[in-house]
Amino acid sequence: MGRLPKFTVADIKGVQGYPPTPAKEGADDPRARDTVDLDETERMIRQLIADGVDSIATNGTLGEMATLTLDEWKAFAATAWETARSIDPDYPLFVGATTLNTRDTLDRMRFLHDLGVPGVLLGRPMWSEMTVQGMVRFYRDVAETFPDMNIIVYDNTAAFRGVIPTAAYAALAEIPQIIAVKYAGGAAIGFRYHHDLQAVRGKIRLMLIETIWFMAYSLYPEESPACWSSTVACGPWPVLYLRDSIQAGRLEEARWVSERILWAHEPFLVSQDFTEFARYNTPLEKMRFNEAGYIKAGPSRPPYTFDIVPEKYVEGVREHVRRWKQVIEEVRQRTAARAAS
Amino acid sequence: MGRLPKFTVADIKGVQGYPPTPAKEGADDPRARDTVDLDETERMIRQLIADGVDSIATNGTLGEMATLTLDEWKAFAATAWETARSIDPDYPLFVGATTLNTRDTLDRMRFLHDLGVPGVLLGRPMWSEMTVQGMVRFYRDVAETFPDMNIIVYDNTAAFRGVIPTAAYAALAEIPQIIAVKYAGGAAIGFRYHHDLQAVRGKIRLMLIETIWFMAYSLYPEESPACWSSTVACGPWPVLYLRDSIQAGRLEEARWVSERILWAHEPFLVSQDFTEFARYNTPLEKMRFNEAGYIKAGPSRPPYTFDIVPEKYVEGVREHVRRWKQVIEEVRQRTAARAAS
Amino acid sequence: MGRLPKFTVADIKGVQGYPPTPAKEGADDPRARDTVDLDETERMIRQLIADGVDSIATNGTLGEMATLTLDEWKAFAATAWETARSIDPDYPLFVGATTLNTRDTLDRMRFLHDLGVPGVLLGRPMWSEMTVQGMVRFYRDVAETFPDMNIIVYDNTAAFRGVIPTAAYAALAEIPQIIAVKYAGGAAIGFRYHHDLQAVRGKIRLMLIETIWFMAYSLYPEESPACWSSTVACGPWPVLYLRDSIQAGRLEEARWVSERILWAHEPFLVSQDFTEFARYNTPLEKMRFNEAGYIKAGPSRPPYTFDIVPEKYVEGVREHVRRWKQVIEEVRQRTAARAAS
Amino acid sequence: MGRLPKFTVADIKGVQGYPPTPAKEGADDPRARDTVDLDETERMIRQLIADGVDSIATNGTLGEMATLTLDEWKAFAATAWETARSIDPDYPLFVGATTLNTRDTLDRMRFLHDLGVPGVLLGRPMWSEMTVQGMVRFYRDVAETFPDMNIIVYDNTAAFRGVIPTAAYAALAEIPQIIAVKYAGGAAIGFRYHHDLQAVRGKIRLMLIETIWFMAYSLYPEESPACWSSTVACGPWPVLYLRDSIQAGRLEEARWVSERILWAHEPFLVSQDFTEFARYNTPLEKMRFNEAGYIKAGPSRPPYTFDIVPEKYVEGVREHVRRWKQVIEEVRQRTAARAAS
Repeated sequence: MGRLPKFTVADIKGVQGYPPTPAKEGADDPRARDTVDLDETERMIRQLIADGVDSIATNGTLGEMATLTLDEWKAFAATAWETARSIDPDYPLFVGATTLNTRDTLDRMRFLHDLGVPGVLLGRPMWSEMTVQGMVRFYRDVAETFPDMNIIVYDNTAAFRGVIPTAAYAALAEIPQIIAVKYAGGAAIGFRYHHDLQAVRGKIRLMLIETIWFMAYSLYPEESPACWSSTVACGPWPVLYLRDSIQAGRLEEARWVSERILWAHEPFLVSQDFTEFARYNTPLEKMRFNEAGYIKAGPSRPPYTFDIVPEKYVEGVREHVRRWKQVIEEVRQRTAARAAS
Repeated sequence: MGRLPKFTVADIKGVQGYPPTPAKEGADDPRARDTVDLDETERMIRQLIADGVDSIATNGTLGEMATLTLDEWKAFAATAWETARSIDPDYPLFVGATTLNTRDTLDRMRFLHDLGVPGVLLGRPMWSEMTVQGMVRFYRDVAETFPDMNIIVYDNTAAFRGVIPTAAYAALAEIPQIIAVKYAGGAAIGFRYHHDLQAVRGKIRLMLIETIWFMAYSLYPEESPACWSSTVACGPWPVLYLRDSIQAGRLEEARWVSERILWAHEPFLVSQDFTEFARYNTPLEKMRFNEAGYIKAGPSRPPYTFDIVPEKYVEGVREHVRRWKQVIEEVRQRTAARAAS
Repeated sequence: MGRLPKFTVADIKGVQGYPPTPAKEGADDPRARDTVDLDETERMIRQLIADGVDSIATNGTLGEMATLTLDEWKAFAATAWETARSIDPDYPLFVGATTLNTRDTLDRMRFLHDLGVPGVLLGRPMWSEMTVQGMVRFYRDVAETFPDMNIIVYDNTAAFRGVIPTAAYAALAEIPQIIAVKYAGGAAIGFRYHHDLQAVRGKIRLMLIETIWFMAYSLYPEESPACWSSTVACGPWPVLYLRDSIQAGRLEEARWVSERILWAHEPFLVSQDFTEFARYNTPLEKMRFNEAGYIKAGPSRPPYTFDIVPEKYVEGVREHVRRWKQVIEEVRQRTAARAAS
Repeated sequence: MGRLPKFTVADIKGVQGYPPTPAKEGADDPRARDTVDLDETERMIRQLIADGVDSIATNGTLGEMATLTLDEWKAFAATAWETARSIDPDYPLFVGATTLNTRDTLDRMRFLHDLGVPGVLLGRPMWSEMTVQGMVRFYRDVAETFPDMNIIVYDNTAAFRGVIPTAAYAALAEIPQIIAVKYAGGAAIGFRYHHDLQAVRGKIRLMLIETIWFMAYSLYPEESPACWSSTVACGPWPVLYLRDSIQAGRLEEARWVSERILWAHEPFLVSQDFTEFARYNTPLEKMRFNEAGYIKAGPSRPPYTFDIVPEKYVEGVREHVRRWKQVIEEVRQRTAARAAS
């Protein structure tokens, strides 16, 4: 591995998947250790790549960066990367390395660097809210220490206490290791996204959630060739259908599947109230993955365990997944019909 | 006028303009009374209709509902409606009637009703934040008292303390007088707009600001055939070009002009920080209208006078208008080129 | 009346009462007009003065400034002032004059001035959040127009969108007409109150709610000789007992009755969640006055009517008043015992 | 050590000090490791105990729980406890153990338990905001795993995303290991403190910051015999003078020194704007300790380093410390005068 990172902004296109960290039975017990289901981890990474997800980022909020022990995180990271590398040595895998401070993150990155992992998904320390100057310095410190690793900036208004301001984006665009952002802000687009696109000047991909990707693509086809998606971990086909439709210029199909994806999200709390969702983010995400059956996500680790989630939100998960399975079937039929014609 | 309002949701399409209430010199003096420039009011309404703005709503925040005396408001309303009616008796003009309480609003509406004004632009009382039950009851009380008048619901997260919740939209959709909403929420679209579209079930038009209209249209062509625009009062042609492009199916032109409109808004505070903008909403809007020259908006009435606005925001207004004029010219050339071809 | 206002900061001491605007039956109907119960208004003012309340301020939030028609407000103001004047021509009565703008407030003040009312209770316009510069200019404009009228500044974090900043207090202290503030901020004291006391330099009385008055008095005996109280309208004796205890230096009695007053407030929403309380402020206050029976407050005017209040809050009102009556009895017995000894 | 914790709520009285984690030169470099100044740590603990601080809690926000490496934290904790134990085996020292999740906290507590540390200062995980149910379960899990260790609950509205609700306090009061709370909420008292005192029913000490302790003591002499103070690390004598005055019933002296302490805090950002302060909490605290000279706190660890602090706040620190030194001198003179009389 040389002195420059492997990937550039041009490599971030299509769908970036955000899968969970599979857990063994009992992983929700505070006394449990060594809780990562490594077999399922391997199967999951293999499946996502085989099904066509363009890149993968692990260990954000739903990926339980906050609740894995150091040893568990290492075991997961090693397995995820070994699996991806065995399939494609150039597969864009980004492992989460967010911690409470700069030095712990650097220690995590050293571990990943030694493994050969090409890049990280990296949110900022969140004990105290970071200022523009603080966040820019943080990412610069990290990038300068590991200049040959890529950075996907992880933004999340709840976890990191507000959005990355436009002024910070302008400065982050000067750091060549940063090639993309898991963009936040209540999953809505308007003036802010426009300003941030101007600020990054094409040097950083601002990936939106798949539910609004098509709207962004309609207005910014050059700047928005990629989305992020955790819903791929419920079965990726509708999101991949959206990607394929966009890439092939079948915009009416892209519009159709975007509406279907939104329809499927209606009962899911994330679409109704992001602040409230953020209190139950990890367990709700793992619940829907378990319900969908594409990945065996297992229990949610303490303190964000399943039992803190009100029943009404659990019901929303069930209906959401029922709809998602229906959309998968609709997409399958349209794909088959297209193939037949 | 019969027992049913004149317009239905189907009548709300294209561009709804939000012009100011022109003020005479000295209108920013607390001792001034009778400050409405009625000549300019007449000319303004005449011009907007002549240039092709599809409907007009007056006396929201920038239209100084908060700062006109009762007599001034009456004079303005009468002149605006007389002008519109003289051009087209069926012109969709909606006069603002927001006050601090239900009864004052009803008294305003009685005045408008007696004039023959077809409808009102109506925000909710804002001294105390209204609950879902309170706002639904408020609009129902008003609608039942004047069943033959239309209501455009005015939402504004700053003025009215948060958005109208989806649950309220579901209930408001049962009130036939309500045909549209000046939709709020930081001028961004995502899950919330989707939920609200489902809630109103086609019975209420949820008009977005023109800057994001094209994105919404891309995903919801049936549900989003209209936008609101106060920028039309800086010269309406770019917004009308957007409308014409959308209606003619020239989506690449619609995309182009949307980006130009966004570019022109970049220096304007409203695009950078809505919370901060809301503190200077009225004077900033009147400043840009004066700067653009399409309407002689005059001074801003107390306490929201020009002198409370920090100079940096005033500079933003100037650059914004400079850009807007450039986009007007670009649109003119494209239109001419199309006519020539 | 000369060119200087009647009262100075030294005149604001003891208990300033905040009574309601009594309403006739049916006043919650949007069609009702002329709804003020003037007989009860007269009786109420007479009673409060007779019972020893030191000054009175009307027509804030619970006094329905937002929901009275202009004619009703005039009738109420005239009756309240005539009653007070007939008892004591120098009684410190301050009538609410908050409106949506400077000029409407000035018109209200002219009416009051002509009646001879010595001062106003005055919040700032709240359609748009006011900046420091804006609020200072607003109060200065008003004070300069009626230099012989006193101003009690009405602050309320909910109604007026946040507290008056310390920087504004420093500037307001330069306006001699302003002698006191109905101080806001979640009814809590700490650094902010300390800073604001420094900022006003003894020129403005910062009145706290009676529930925390004793704590403030303990630390700032010179600066905090006055409190405001709306609970006096449930029967003023516990608050007057607090005042008398403080003024007589019976601090242990003051401590005792402060705890009893807090105990009585525990079931009342205002003590539990001010943001939620603010959505139901007017109806909840009128409910408790009606329940207590000291004043016949009558219905709450639209849109803030009784029927929008969730039942659990109504139950809290009932228990609050039950406790208040018990504290009244306890105070009566202590007073009797003291008189007997 | 038996199966019950060493201390009960009755042991928490007087002043609980919150000292920093002294850092060697260069500790602000992201490459630095092993940065704890253990000599100064020992001297600091020794000094605080010798000067009469009643109990000590380490490793909250200013104690850099967020930014120490695991090895550094272990070295600091061991030194702090060895020092305290060597002076008084029963000294109430509480070491911070807040992490991002339950299991990491348990691992930290096992280390402390093996050392013989009697208790922990423990905030809740903060990646996702915790609900009432989640926070109660978190503290219960921890307490049940180490039933013989005490817990001081660390609350901080900024770090932990809002206050601990009253409903949570009622449940936490059932956990016998919890004996006190470093109480949060903008350093102000009012209804909330009253409700929380009722909720904990005397089983948990709700310690306020020393600046408002006297006010709380005036109203709640039984419930509020203790305060927390980080300012003791600038020289503890004014806070100890406050404690001694309260305990000796010299309330006028307590009032006097409370006002002097508030006066000294006026230029310090924490007193002006807590939200803004929270962005610079750690570096500002370490700056003032270094400026005061009582403890050699050293640099602030990344990412919360000195260089992110705006100069105006640094100037505030300097004036704050200048005033603090003056108050120390005033207290010294009063103490000497009392001894002489």
